[in-house]
Amino acid sequence: MKLIALETSAKTASAAVLTEGKVLGTASVTAGLTHSQTILPLMEALLKGVSMELSEADGFAVSIGPGSFTGLRIGISAVKGMAQGLSKGCVGISTLEGLAYNFQGLHYTVCPVMDARCGQVYTSLFWVNGGAPRRLWEDMAIPMTTLKEKLQSVEGDIMLVGDGAELAYGALSDTGKVLLAPPALRYQSAASVGFAALSHLETEGFIEPAQLLPAYLRLPQAERELLAREAMQKQSKG
Amino acid sequence: MKLIALETSAKTASAAVLTEGKVLGTASVTAGLTHSQTILPLMEALLKGVSMELSEADGFAVSIGPGSFTGLRIGISAVKGMAQGLSKGCVGISTLEGLAYNFQGLHYTVCPVMDARCGQVYTSLFWVNGGAPRRLWEDMAIPMTTLKEKLQSVEGDIMLVGDGAELAYGALSDTGKVLLAPPALRYQSAASVGFAALSHLETEGFIEPAQLLPAYLRLPQAERELLAREAMQKQSKG
Repeated sequence: MKLIALETSAKTASAAVLTEGKVLGTASVTAGLTHSQTILPLMEALLKGVSMELSEADGFAVSIGPGSFTGLRIGISAVKGMAQGLSKGCVGISTLEGLAYNFQGLHYTVCPVMDARCGQVYTSLFWVNGGAPRRLWEDMAIPMTTLKEKLQSVEGDIMLVGDGAELAYGALSDTGKVLLAPPALRYQSAASVGFAALSHLETEGFIEPAQLLPAYLRLPQAERELLAREAMQKQSKG
Repeated sequence: MKLIALETSAKTASAAVLTEGKVLGTASVTAGLTHSQTILPLMEALLKGVSMELSEADGFAVSIGPGSFTGLRIGISAVKGMAQGLSKGCVGISTLEGLAYNFQGLHYTVCPVMDARCGQVYTSLFWVNGGAPRRLWEDMAIPMTTLKEKLQSVEGDIMLVGDGAELAYGALSDTGKVLLAPPALRYQSAASVGFAALSHLETEGFIEPAQLLPAYLRLPQAERELLAREAMQKQSKG
């Protein structure tokens, strides 16, 4: 089975080709260009490198959020398009779970953190003990102060991963229990999304391209502002 | 400072662009093609992805062995050529040290193992405690049985990494003290070679392209056979 995975939820654009338990190829860039300019040429170069045609893929995996609204739409749309065109299945992976898979096979309690702006973080918690990450918390958007309180009750050292890890390390280092993931393992990676997808495929099947939906965790800012305005109008009328 | 790193010592062809403590982009493939067909197109796709010209590189890093004689020559020649053409400096990194850098920033005793054929392995030992790997053993080519004896005196669990790690895991698992690196961290990576080079550059400068030499640890098979034949002729004459 050959799986193509894409990750475009944040600053890194990443593509990977995996087969059972093995990365055939992977490419990631963190550059100034937008993902719409980067991700497909990157995937094409990768396919050329592993001497594979797109049509040889048995399915597609993509991170579905939380993350940048635009970034997520680019990755999900690309995967939907390719899967639809080739009549192949899809797997959607939580961006936070994908980050935890950077530590697959190691031995850490892993806390993915992404900056959700407005003083909030997207976060979750996983336990890794030599195998696949085991989920301890659901994905959530919470204030950093709440994350700090929640982590107090977690035993042992906690490895912070994700593009909000450095921010969280600064805010949580006085707890004396957080570690900062090294740069090579800190950011989103399509290979990790692919490994997470291979784990899910052991118990669940592929989904149809049309079923692939982003999991924003929060409404887009424009919709949040609209709801706030509507609520205010209701109040002033009431 | 921008550094371009190549890794072609074994089955994986890998290229990376790094700046201080950060990977700007990386691409790795493990495919059927020879590295001479793969590595330069891969690097070009990567440079395009990070919107960088080759001439913007401040230097080049490459793994110098041990490893495949042909693979090493391809990587070293490519780096020598680019550095010479652009009048830039080079850094040569031990393939085994590069493998240990896959675990930079984590917390393991790391034993890189590469299959050296003829019952031997290329190996070394590093200690990683949240920072750069610290070298405990010199690089060496020894029988697997000798590695087993040597590891008995090492305290704690030992993480096996490299394309000989699985072989070594089979041979050493009855010691009860070896772990097998997860697939995503098991193989040669240009990003790791680049991080090792950045560490070396803190205390040592770049070297001239002409000074960049492979470190085979053993003579090429043809030369070993020649020496063996010469020794036999001497004996028969003596």
